[in-house]
Amino acid sequence: MKKLMNEPNAVVDEMIEGYAAAYARHVKVLPQNKRAVVCAGGARPGKVGVVIGGGSGHEPAFMGLIGRGFADGAPVGNVFASPPPAPILEVTRAVNGGAGVIYMYGNYAGDCMNFDMAAELAAMEHIRVETVLVTDDVASAPPSQAHRRRGIAGGFLVFKAAGAAAERGYGLEDVVRVARKTNDAIRTMGVALTPCAVPQTGKPSFVLGEDEMEIGLGIHGEPGVERGKLRTADEVADALLERILADMPVESGDRVAVLINGLGSTPQMELFIVYRRVAQRLAELGAHIHRSFVGEYVTSLEMGGCSVSVLKLDDELAELVDDPADTPMYAQHREGKEG
Amino acid sequence: MKKLMNEPNAVVDEMIEGYAAAYARHVKVLPQNKRAVVCAGGARPGKVGVVIGGGSGHEPAFMGLIGRGFADGAPVGNVFASPPPAPILEVTRAVNGGAGVIYMYGNYAGDCMNFDMAAELAAMEHIRVETVLVTDDVASAPPSQAHRRRGIAGGFLVFKAAGAAAERGYGLEDVVRVARKTNDAIRTMGVALTPCAVPQTGKPSFVLGEDEMEIGLGIHGEPGVERGKLRTADEVADALLERILADMPVESGDRVAVLINGLGSTPQMELFIVYRRVAQRLAELGAHIHRSFVGEYVTSLEMGGCSVSVLKLDDELAELVDDPADTPMYAQHREGKEG
Repeated sequence: MKKLMNEPNAVVDEMIEGYAAAYARHVKVLPQNKRAVVCAGGARPGKVGVVIGGGSGHEPAFMGLIGRGFADGAPVGNVFASPPPAPILEVTRAVNGGAGVIYMYGNYAGDCMNFDMAAELAAMEHIRVETVLVTDDVASAPPSQAHRRRGIAGGFLVFKAAGAAAERGYGLEDVVRVARKTNDAIRTMGVALTPCAVPQTGKPSFVLGEDEMEIGLGIHGEPGVERGKLRTADEVADALLERILADMPVESGDRVAVLINGLGSTPQMELFIVYRRVAQRLAELGAHIHRSFVGEYVTSLEMGGCSVSVLKLDDELAELVDDPADTPMYAQHREGKEG
Repeated sequence: MKKLMNEPNAVVDEMIEGYAAAYARHVKVLPQNKRAVVCAGGARPGKVGVVIGGGSGHEPAFMGLIGRGFADGAPVGNVFASPPPAPILEVTRAVNGGAGVIYMYGNYAGDCMNFDMAAELAAMEHIRVETVLVTDDVASAPPSQAHRRRGIAGGFLVFKAAGAAAERGYGLEDVVRVARKTNDAIRTMGVALTPCAVPQTGKPSFVLGEDEMEIGLGIHGEPGVERGKLRTADEVADALLERILADMPVESGDRVAVLINGLGSTPQMELFIVYRRVAQRLAELGAHIHRSFVGEYVTSLEMGGCSVSVLKLDDELAELVDDPADTPMYAQHREGKEG
């Protein structure tokens, strides 16, 4: 597959260089580690430091979400690979304002190992670190094993809510509580239509027939739960939503946030067509969609397809999801304030 | 090519339905015409109405850019086809706050014909309309015929500057002056790697070999100026920038805005790698990059590739480009204000 790149092994470093140059108002790379990206303003005393991260290839996650009201820093791994402990530790030190640090990332073995090691090293420096794993992918384990599920696009809303809580001045325990509550209340189901290729190999990450799709396929190409003929957008939306609702029922009067996430090459047009059906179905159930997000939030390079996430809101989460944010790749204004 | 859609002929209407449902805080569809999308708050008395538009398939352009500090309304055409006069006229009426209306769109024959007809109809209702065509695509005509050039991604910055001017309360003549000045000071060059397919046919819009790229190919598949083997990202960035600079020299001390626009399926990672090189080259020339935009602004469904735009700024344009904006698909905060 064709890529605009120089050396395949340099893509991540060159991406970070370009990103930091383009958005120097928001972010900086730490001089001691070129894979450690943090907010330009540095740590803020008394504020919980919010660290998100994981492999590259999921842009705008994770470093695109650094800024006021969202994350304070992101260690950056190779494509589809966890960052090692060193950049995680450097980011932790840089965003520690004395109120502790929260790590949030998708539940993958490599990430767990590396972030845990960094947390231990941080503890030796008397930095308190708490971890919340994102486990929103319904397809990746049955309900009885929900804690083993992988983290996919729903992480965006877990980070959003916890980032807003930290911005409001919540203490570490409360930021952790918000992150856990959000993760417990969100479910995601994805569908893949076409593969991506990691730069080093240039080979497609999986093979699907010209008329096929796969439901539940992971953001690194992990096997899904159902392969079959591509159906209409409404049928696909129904299939995704039904699996979500079977796992987490939504009832009349429930308030939800909805996220339709493009995996990389799917036109916005198609994402809005999928959103249309999801919104219709939720309205039929009597649910109220409090806020919607349609676009690319957690991608897989140029993979084709999308995911649907539903987050059940209480008053606290509704406010936190609404709170303003100002990051290079995602910004949201405070309601009613000047534009 | 695979698409998440229902009836191919319904994609535009269903997209608009989904979009308006997802972003009802920002936009509404006029009941009298389902292709007329305007800001939720309606016309603002005394403010110049800003209308942008064109065919679908370029999302987030155009309707994704409706909101404070940007456009007031967008008539929506079929995929890669101009909207007819009716939705243009309805949008014009709806955003007219008594201070006149500016039309801005890319220079394509169909758009010119339909927007001009709508402007004549609006004039009969005593609504003053002025038009500024976007002509930023260096590849589409030689310098001596610059007014015949097509409009591509640079339109985003023309709309941004003029939208900010209207938001500041500039009169119609000044908003038009800003739009013309921005268009005169911006140049864009694109490169395509892979085609898109319009939903009605499902056929690729052009054919390129597995190792080929085409420089200057238009956002509807119009022929480019140079087809050849895919080169490294730095070489591609150099080739695009050299054509821009040959047309509009940038000198030491110049202030510029840079826009790297993804055409649809190109990962953000690659856009930042291209940005990195463009920024290096401009720095070597002694230019100062005042603000950068990297992402998808004017797409061509799932086309692969990107474009580079350079806008030369004076004090006025620098301020207008910096002004806050709040639209569903693009938001920008006021510097120094809370997040």
